[in-house]
Amino acid sequence: MPSPRAGTRSTRTSRAGLERRRVFAAAARGLCAAGRRFDARGWVLGTSGNFSVVLSRRPLRLAITSSGEFKGELTADRILEIDGDAGSVVKGGGRPSAETALHVEIVRERDAGAVLHTHSVWSTVLSEAHAGERGLVIEGFEMLKGLEGVTTHDHREWLPILDNDQDMDRLAGRVGRVLREHPSCHGFLLRRHGLYTWGDTLPQAVRHVEILEFLLEAVGRTFGRTSWPS
Amino acid sequence: MPSPRAGTRSTRTSRAGLERRRVFAAAARGLCAAGRRFDARGWVLGTSGNFSVVLSRRPLRLAITSSGEFKGELTADRILEIDGDAGSVVKGGGRPSAETALHVEIVRERDAGAVLHTHSVWSTVLSEAHAGERGLVIEGFEMLKGLEGVTTHDHREWLPILDNDQDMDRLAGRVGRVLREHPSCHGFLLRRHGLYTWGDTLPQAVRHVEILEFLLEAVGRTFGRTSWPS
Amino acid sequence: MPSPRAGTRSTRTSRAGLERRRVFAAAARGLCAAGRRFDARGWVLGTSGNFSVVLSRRPLRLAITSSGEFKGELTADRILEIDGDAGSVVKGGGRPSAETALHVEIVRERDAGAVLHTHSVWSTVLSEAHAGERGLVIEGFEMLKGLEGVTTHDHREWLPILDNDQDMDRLAGRVGRVLREHPSCHGFLLRRHGLYTWGDTLPQAVRHVEILEFLLEAVGRTFGRTSWPS
Amino acid sequence: MPSPRAGTRSTRTSRAGLERRRVFAAAARGLCAAGRRFDARGWVLGTSGNFSVVLSRRPLRLAITSSGEFKGELTADRILEIDGDAGSVVKGGGRPSAETALHVEIVRERDAGAVLHTHSVWSTVLSEAHAGERGLVIEGFEMLKGLEGVTTHDHREWLPILDNDQDMDRLAGRVGRVLREHPSCHGFLLRRHGLYTWGDTLPQAVRHVEILEFLLEAVGRTFGRTSWPS
Repeated sequence: MPSPRAGTRSTRTSRAGLERRRVFAAAARGLCAAGRRFDARGWVLGTSGNFSVVLSRRPLRLAITSSGEFKGELTADRILEIDGDAGSVVKGGGRPSAETALHVEIVRERDAGAVLHTHSVWSTVLSEAHAGERGLVIEGFEMLKGLEGVTTHDHREWLPILDNDQDMDRLAGRVGRVLREHPSCHGFLLRRHGLYTWGDTLPQAVRHVEILEFLLEAVGRTFGRTSWPS
Repeated sequence: MPSPRAGTRSTRTSRAGLERRRVFAAAARGLCAAGRRFDARGWVLGTSGNFSVVLSRRPLRLAITSSGEFKGELTADRILEIDGDAGSVVKGGGRPSAETALHVEIVRERDAGAVLHTHSVWSTVLSEAHAGERGLVIEGFEMLKGLEGVTTHDHREWLPILDNDQDMDRLAGRVGRVLREHPSCHGFLLRRHGLYTWGDTLPQAVRHVEILEFLLEAVGRTFGRTSWPS
Repeated sequence: MPSPRAGTRSTRTSRAGLERRRVFAAAARGLCAAGRRFDARGWVLGTSGNFSVVLSRRPLRLAITSSGEFKGELTADRILEIDGDAGSVVKGGGRPSAETALHVEIVRERDAGAVLHTHSVWSTVLSEAHAGERGLVIEGFEMLKGLEGVTTHDHREWLPILDNDQDMDRLAGRVGRVLREHPSCHGFLLRRHGLYTWGDTLPQAVRHVEILEFLLEAVGRTFGRTSWPS
Repeated sequence: MPSPRAGTRSTRTSRAGLERRRVFAAAARGLCAAGRRFDARGWVLGTSGNFSVVLSRRPLRLAITSSGEFKGELTADRILEIDGDAGSVVKGGGRPSAETALHVEIVRERDAGAVLHTHSVWSTVLSEAHAGERGLVIEGFEMLKGLEGVTTHDHREWLPILDNDQDMDRLAGRVGRVLREHPSCHGFLLRRHGLYTWGDTLPQAVRHVEILEFLLEAVGRTFGRTSWPS
């Protein structure tokens, strides 16, 4: 039976509030599905990786995976909503990924709608093998056309490699500089760490993960064993 | 309650129309199942690959995957029906694959009932390693008997490799010439791109994908790291 | 309502007949489950592989997979019952595997209750790399203890390699001789073809497939690229 | 209808007894889930591997997988409860793993809440390649942060390698000595056998398996083919 104060409650759960909840729920479902997909391929083993979707730009709000979760077993109630300006949790009980600052930096530099970070064996191996050159050229593959804006296999993609760092503010600063230096790159590697990529939407970012992971494996299997410095 | 014009409608949905819908639905279900199968093996990452089934020969109609879909998450309503002569969409809302012209060319040259195109790491690696010879010999494997018409492992299969091209009419012309030059080949590679194969039926074409991908991996793992030109 | 001739029917479906059907149904279910398991690992691609379970010894009856089926999509009604002495189909509509004679030979030589044949990339690669020695030593691995009767890792398993042959009677004769020469071997490879192994029961044979495939991959990854004759 | 002695029975199934059953059931469910997870990755092929969870410390009780089970098909009723002091089965019909003594040794030395043992191809290959040095250094990888207590990629993890042994008491003694010599190690390899790791909880131990297996594969693919002694 409706309460006499139902009107008041209905005012509190305003149309905008319902819309925000709908947007969050869709983002959370998408992040869980991406987690299952990447887990099946072994790209987020041992609770590694973190994913985010932009919920609103002003103020900047992101749905982001919390730290320490197996990404193949995510549930929507484990996804956090964070304030991208303050870096604080707006909704949800977990701890946001330590790498939240990188997600926010990428969203700002690229106007991205989703940011995905995975840890695959091949990205780890190649991030070390090409660390000396501070990046990796990938060119001539049809698969490059899966990267937004690329319309021919006859494309030269530069995948920058940054040294790993536990100081996230410093690393976010370096990420920002690399993104400005390479305005057309679609991702980057952190050395002996993994891949960051992004997209206008979550499906586009998922596609970029799969394209780049495929290309890294193809390059890795072609050149085979690489020399490991020191 | 039946409308007074039900008889008219029933005439419009004629027996032939029902049969066409049944044929399309079966083809679409088969293409979705093939997509899930190949996705699980990592052969259609990042929305790559495209698949088609012939619905009728005169006029030439194909059920074909639309562009930009994750092949492991296809649903029947995302499959297009296209006019093979005009290259236009007859039914369905998406954009047909850019490579539709290659499917039509193969259907005509080989009288194929289904055409499948996958992007695996091993086909990509070997398409480059053997590009200089414009093809690859695969011989002596029992698995070759999975290719239609091959009855002994003591068979020499020539898998042609064509340079990749974004001009689909020009590439379709080259595909046609290669198929006429090698009338008994069961597939071909596009350089740094992937595998095309086909069959009288969709299950036969699926079998050909699996057989050729298996053989390419076996060859790739045997010879190991190959030298990469330039 | 029971027919007046129910007694007669009940006599026809005798207790022994019911038991035979139960045994067949259990064997068929087990073969379907093994097919899904091996398909997920890529060991029966392209409808390759074939599996059998002994239903009775006198007369010799086997449940066996029919030819041309995707082993990951087997259903119980696609499993055949064959007469092992005559080599003929007793029940079921398909065509028995061309390699049925090898299954019968192994059942007789080893008193096996189940025979499994898989086509993996690593067994194919190693069957060629070690063809000159007509076999492969696998020793010192804990996993060897998964082979029936082996109680220590300090075991030397000889895995014979036979040349492939399309004459099944001749090949069955050679299989018989190799099994008698190597009475303690748990499997063998056919060159550029695949693995045969067996067990007292189907679960034991499944275990033997997994153990031997694991060991072949471990050996293959250790020694890496092998030289390929000619 | 309740028996007149229902009260007595209800006393026997005391609150503590219910709690013990709840704890056991949760442990068993977790072990089954871990089995499915590792089976999907090919780390427990052929019934290899064994897993345990501590149920109580005084007296020491463990839930442990029984011998000879496919770890991807475990059911809770196949999990045993054992007395860690006596090494005897308290509940359940199977045979405890031969390696139970190693689990108990690790629980005691590390105060672990869960112990997991897997057999992967890469751990097997590297356990042999580095046997001469009696261990393996893994350093500089972000993934190392997934190991409990490690807070930076700039960490040097020593993964000891012990010779394999079928005398479990002797091997347990050697395991104890290695754990005391390397008080900060998170796991060890048995030569040509597999990985042991542990955690305060089962999810932590699962995370350690995934982290270490990932790192071993990354190291293995980097250095490629290794020389095999003898």
